[in-house]
Amino acid sequence: MSVHRLTLGDVLSEHRRGRPLGTAVVDGDVRLSYPELGDRVDRLAGALAADGVGAGDRVLWLGQNSFRVLELLLACGSLGAVLCPANWRQSADELAHVLDDLTPRLVVWEESEAVEKARSQVSLDARWVRSGEEYEAYAAAGVPLAAEPDVPDDAPVLALYTAAFDGRPNAALLSHSALVAHSMALLHVRQMEDGFAFLACGPLFHVGTMMFTLATFQIGGKLVFTPAYEPTEVCRLIDAERCTQAFLFGPMIDGLVEANKDRRYDLSSLRFVSHSPEWDEMITVDSSPWCASGMGGYGQTEAGGMLTFLGLGMGGAGLAGRPSPLVHVRLLDPSGAEVPAGEVGEICARGHSLFSGYWNRPALNAAKAAGGWHHTGDLGRREPDGTLTFIGPRLRMIKSANENIYPAEVERALKAHPAVADAAVIGVPDERFGQSPKAVVVLADGASATAEEIIEHVRGEIASYKKPREVVFADAIPKKGYTPDYDALDAAHGGGAYPGA
Amino acid sequence: MSVHRLTLGDVLSEHRRGRPLGTAVVDGDVRLSYPELGDRVDRLAGALAADGVGAGDRVLWLGQNSFRVLELLLACGSLGAVLCPANWRQSADELAHVLDDLTPRLVVWEESEAVEKARSQVSLDARWVRSGEEYEAYAAAGVPLAAEPDVPDDAPVLALYTAAFDGRPNAALLSHSALVAHSMALLHVRQMEDGFAFLACGPLFHVGTMMFTLATFQIGGKLVFTPAYEPTEVCRLIDAERCTQAFLFGPMIDGLVEANKDRRYDLSSLRFVSHSPEWDEMITVDSSPWCASGMGGYGQTEAGGMLTFLGLGMGGAGLAGRPSPLVHVRLLDPSGAEVPAGEVGEICARGHSLFSGYWNRPALNAAKAAGGWHHTGDLGRREPDGTLTFIGPRLRMIKSANENIYPAEVERALKAHPAVADAAVIGVPDERFGQSPKAVVVLADGASATAEEIIEHVRGEIASYKKPREVVFADAIPKKGYTPDYDALDAAHGGGAYPGA
Repeated sequence: MSVHRLTLGDVLSEHRRGRPLGTAVVDGDVRLSYPELGDRVDRLAGALAADGVGAGDRVLWLGQNSFRVLELLLACGSLGAVLCPANWRQSADELAHVLDDLTPRLVVWEESEAVEKARSQVSLDARWVRSGEEYEAYAAAGVPLAAEPDVPDDAPVLALYTAAFDGRPNAALLSHSALVAHSMALLHVRQMEDGFAFLACGPLFHVGTMMFTLATFQIGGKLVFTPAYEPTEVCRLIDAERCTQAFLFGPMIDGLVEANKDRRYDLSSLRFVSHSPEWDEMITVDSSPWCASGMGGYGQTEAGGMLTFLGLGMGGAGLAGRPSPLVHVRLLDPSGAEVPAGEVGEICARGHSLFSGYWNRPALNAAKAAGGWHHTGDLGRREPDGTLTFIGPRLRMIKSANENIYPAEVERALKAHPAVADAAVIGVPDERFGQSPKAVVVLADGASATAEEIIEHVRGEIASYKKPREVVFADAIPKKGYTPDYDALDAAHGGGAYPGA
Repeated sequence: MSVHRLTLGDVLSEHRRGRPLGTAVVDGDVRLSYPELGDRVDRLAGALAADGVGAGDRVLWLGQNSFRVLELLLACGSLGAVLCPANWRQSADELAHVLDDLTPRLVVWEESEAVEKARSQVSLDARWVRSGEEYEAYAAAGVPLAAEPDVPDDAPVLALYTAAFDGRPNAALLSHSALVAHSMALLHVRQMEDGFAFLACGPLFHVGTMMFTLATFQIGGKLVFTPAYEPTEVCRLIDAERCTQAFLFGPMIDGLVEANKDRRYDLSSLRFVSHSPEWDEMITVDSSPWCASGMGGYGQTEAGGMLTFLGLGMGGAGLAGRPSPLVHVRLLDPSGAEVPAGEVGEICARGHSLFSGYWNRPALNAAKAAGGWHHTGDLGRREPDGTLTFIGPRLRMIKSANENIYPAEVERALKAHPAVADAAVIGVPDERFGQSPKAVVVLADGASATAEEIIEHVRGEIASYKKPREVVFADAIPKKGYTPDYDALDAAHGGGAYPGA
């Protein structure tokens, strides 16, 4: 075994010795120390191994938040297997896709009609274990392995399905090393210290909750699990467990302020971002770079969570700050060449926290790692001070007179016009230039602007060759999830002649 | 190239883009931004490559502190080569040993009689470049390489000679990954943030100065170099460059207080450990775990610097705190089995910041990495709360009635007696038990104690079987460096029958 290895199991192994007295996990009536958590993981790994779960195999969790997600992750990790906590609230068809795609050897599930329907739709050679008593009996019957398998730390251990902007979701595989590296960056930027207690009240199938869960684990802190966000229960847990942090943003925070308006709960242990006068009085406003910057940055599941942190570029021009100290970012054009500062390119990265590709997507993985750079699929720009700005998803590219034009960049400029409520940009065939950009614009209620005024506005925001040659007005932009439905727009407004098409 | 790679060159590459405006390096009249530093490194790498320096080759620096140590490190790193900054104040014989052992392809040196004498003693096929103008001309003539070599980040890049307690010094090889990992741990514990400025006023051939230099580099901070510690100049630089930290401890701090007693220099930018009322008034006392804990922990060059941090176990019983989040520590007995908490064993570790072995010491390297654990050669103990205490070097082991007894542990107990000024423990042949421990004790001036009183005292401190059977009094303990000269003690006091001997 390499003296440089550090798997999640090694981290647990250290905490069993280094933190024998404190609390590792709280979940309802369950309270475990690190040695107790370790003992459970050992038995669970024995049970999984007896079921044939080994290196490269997948285990699927379909249920609400639970400390069992963490122990399953650790048990899978010790065998070289992968845990996937998936959104159990998806439709039966979506769940069936996950089952077909992931082909898990074991599924731990909570009662749900959709899960049962999905199970009946697929043919899968998997063991199904119901969460709760059945799971507890299954785990308790496990016999710890006599010898720990020699799992390398670049083996994937966590799979998270990411909402692809287009098409079916893909399971991003994250290795022990990537998770440990991401945790280190977060420990640094959030200044997570001895005694840190995290309340996992956001979904564990989302990287935002998972990344703080794992960073807290990395530093040997206390993890408090609750099935889902419920404002009064979240307040009660912060008070009872003296939580330092929780997974919260805007409307969730407002919910807590409302639930605690009688000040029944003492939330002063929470060191969090400033939000409103009422909130700031209830908690301790945190001054770490993570909180002082308003918890910003640019991230994606494929980067283990955050790729850049606003807290590493505070006061800078870029809205995404600077990269984690463990990654290196370049902005590349479609040929793989770097674009100069100030120009928009695809955010590409290299470094320790990057994923190991998607499960079962060899062609996509090769494209994502072209030239030794992870291609995020998002557009960004280096500002003159070196900080980064996220522009938008790179869904399409228009090629006009040999120049690359990304719709997201032009749309951003269009939406900066006060009369524009929404906008989308497509490429239309152009005899002279190959393509030219055309804008579909939705005006704000009661506002008015001419096509000429809007084009002139864009010319003032970005390079002139990127401005739309033509602007048409519409009542709404058709959407696919959060982004424009470009296929529908092309069909309605004469789009075509895209490069590579 | 792997999307997970992060060499020191990748870090520099990021800073060239992400920090184009600030200052990277200050050294006398030299001020460089990160892009300027990067350009120098590119040319220097070209010059080194033209001289045949490639993967695995060594470059030796024999001189005072200089920003050139950093640029040589980065240039070597980009070629897969290794830089060794060595103590140029060693004797000619010691320097000749370094030259013979390291067999560098290039030596950059400052004028010194000892260096010239050492050079004449060895037969070495190396290019010698004088620091200063000759070096500048050499570096300026370099032509940047057309393509960057694909150096893996587990390639060694830095070699630091460590003072072996016994025998000749060995050059510990540290890889890009190990240095990056150690920097991350330090960024976390010291809360090093945007705008951090480090004054390298301790020797760069020592890991204590190097580790902060590299962590500052990792976060894209400002590095201020000064040839050596000179109190007034250190005060002036802290003031002029608004340094956040410097390499300082006890007597060096007193020197600054004395040099600045007229308060001519504003040292308030320095965020440092509390030391004396005068000092605390001059600086800003820092509350990061690193400073709040008094900058403690356990470290060695082979771990990249710190293996454990007191700041990660504040308030705990162990004087060395807890391991870096990127390492895992176990206390092992000579058979490789773990000793229980409370027992003394060898501090062994696994993790990201560990070295890649010593240059040119295959047998020693195999022994140091036995069983997949790095063996530090030092003894430690887990306290009941899981924190660690460093006991002393594991130089010898006594075997009595099949029990392992480490002299360092017994000596620690002996020195805790108020009448004992110094002590050493050897093993003497014993017909019944194989060996038995014998103490050689130096009494404090004017103090008195009987052998029986001292033995009784030790019995109260540690397990009874470890107590000396016999105590003899002496005027002094012969030393080899900082540790007892056990060979001389054995000869004088009848030692022998050591296990394995």
